[in-house]
Amino acid sequence: MINRLTEQIKKKNAPIVVGLDPTEKLIPDFIIDKCIKEYGETLKAMEEAICEYNKNIIDAVYEYVPAIKPQIAMYERYGIPGLSAFERTVRYAKEKGLVVIGDVKRGDIGSTSAAYATAHLGSVKIGTKTVKCFDEDFATVNPYLGSDGINPFIDVCREEKKGIFILVKTSNPSSGEYQDKLIDGRPLYELVGENIAAMAEGFMGDEYSYIGAVVGATYPEQGRILRQIMPKSYILVPGYGAQGGKGKDLVHFFNEDGLGAIINSSRGIIGAYQNEKYASYGEEGYADAALAAVKDMKEDIAQALGER
Amino acid sequence: MINRLTEQIKKKNAPIVVGLDPTEKLIPDFIIDKCIKEYGETLKAMEEAICEYNKNIIDAVYEYVPAIKPQIAMYERYGIPGLSAFERTVRYAKEKGLVVIGDVKRGDIGSTSAAYATAHLGSVKIGTKTVKCFDEDFATVNPYLGSDGINPFIDVCREEKKGIFILVKTSNPSSGEYQDKLIDGRPLYELVGENIAAMAEGFMGDEYSYIGAVVGATYPEQGRILRQIMPKSYILVPGYGAQGGKGKDLVHFFNEDGLGAIINSSRGIIGAYQNEKYASYGEEGYADAALAAVKDMKEDIAQALGER
Repeated sequence: MINRLTEQIKKKNAPIVVGLDPTEKLIPDFIIDKCIKEYGETLKAMEEAICEYNKNIIDAVYEYVPAIKPQIAMYERYGIPGLSAFERTVRYAKEKGLVVIGDVKRGDIGSTSAAYATAHLGSVKIGTKTVKCFDEDFATVNPYLGSDGINPFIDVCREEKKGIFILVKTSNPSSGEYQDKLIDGRPLYELVGENIAAMAEGFMGDEYSYIGAVVGATYPEQGRILRQIMPKSYILVPGYGAQGGKGKDLVHFFNEDGLGAIINSSRGIIGAYQNEKYASYGEEGYADAALAAVKDMKEDIAQALGER
Repeated sequence: MINRLTEQIKKKNAPIVVGLDPTEKLIPDFIIDKCIKEYGETLKAMEEAICEYNKNIIDAVYEYVPAIKPQIAMYERYGIPGLSAFERTVRYAKEKGLVVIGDVKRGDIGSTSAAYATAHLGSVKIGTKTVKCFDEDFATVNPYLGSDGINPFIDVCREEKKGIFILVKTSNPSSGEYQDKLIDGRPLYELVGENIAAMAEGFMGDEYSYIGAVVGATYPEQGRILRQIMPKSYILVPGYGAQGGKGKDLVHFFNEDGLGAIINSSRGIIGAYQNEKYASYGEEGYADAALAAVKDMKEDIAQALGER
């Protein structure tokens, strides 16, 4: 799957992933109103509203981007129907040929991580049948519990040819409270990065490893260092756009081959119609606004990479 | 809710939480076979099998223990139907007067943690209606992203009078890979503990804080130190029984008042019928075996506390 991600990034010339993080502030009112009219003020109405919103965005952008990254929290928030919308979104995006990165940030002790890995990347046996559940292509994983919590994901990835992105340096303002603390003279995030680099070497695709990392666009200097520490890992970079990251901050996340990073934007794309710059699309044109934002983002990154 | 947990622990004289972590190895074959006969080899069959298994265990133990802790990974593993079983288990346990600790180990950047907090502890607005989703009483939270990732949970807890347990020192063998690393001379888990102690003071119930911690029974010496660092926080202690923790290892997790810790056992209780000691109950008697294991565990802990 890491080969497919690389191939799709090259083909579409866009190291971009669209964060499909639907909230009631981002979904246009006309969609929510219509669904409430049909299903009442229920979680089911939100399931249908999310699916419609996501479907139209996917239809608009799928030829231009290699991947989507649904943040499961935004679906889990609406309980079982919300999680059904997550499952349907994953399935639809895959039908459209997109790579799906499940932003689930799971991680637990061994047997429990194995259950999460099964849920999101693997399959479960029931009697004589094998059933896949959420079936994303990649998942994000929290490293706090150490290798016990990560290895079960890697085991499933080997079997299914899928991959993970392990949290290293997250994009949020307080990420330094623990991640920046010095351990034997270098920050915790570097130690996590070193461990990822060692794991990554043992599980390689053609050019890159199945084991990637998450490093926020809001920390470009740390990105530069982590790029060097983990040369064979893709870096999934959240925090572009709405969180403050800009194209020129991103260049050091890429290797010299122009690969090795995939930049996520969520609100900046799926909520573009609410941005003054794309306001002319109107609420009804939210999917076209998303595509316009994708094209601008692609240009911003290409320009920054061209100038480095 | 922390007052209710304390009151229930005192009333039932049992600082014990039953880990409801159903797996196909723990659920007796006769239940799975029956459900597959009715629902086919489907995820729905597993939903029903889990619910029946859990219900009978809850019915057997609810008068003897204050709380249950379902590990959501074991449900998520069976996709949407599995998560429906989680939701139904939470609801049923609450009907029986049990406190429910959702072992979800969520944690993300601010807006995303807010969505998880809403999903598990809060409620969501749809039109004019307010809807609760999974609605546990407590949730476990991963601290790797720092206070941004924790505060949204605390905000919801204030509103709903619910609580959280933040991972500090987990029970698994590799937990030391990051958690034990020295930062300014003391391990990371102590730094996390210090931050919890500061947060806990700002959000108190009658005797204990709404903000607790997770420390594994498998690390009794660290438990002793963390007990002193976080005097006002309940410590949720996994790892008793199947993971190797014993009653005498647990005494230092408790305060002098005999409170402040709640010990989890999962396989040791819900899979007791598979243990030689309780084999006479047979597969059909799994719920009675679970109750016998609860009583023995209660005795083991009381004896250890009596001897300290």
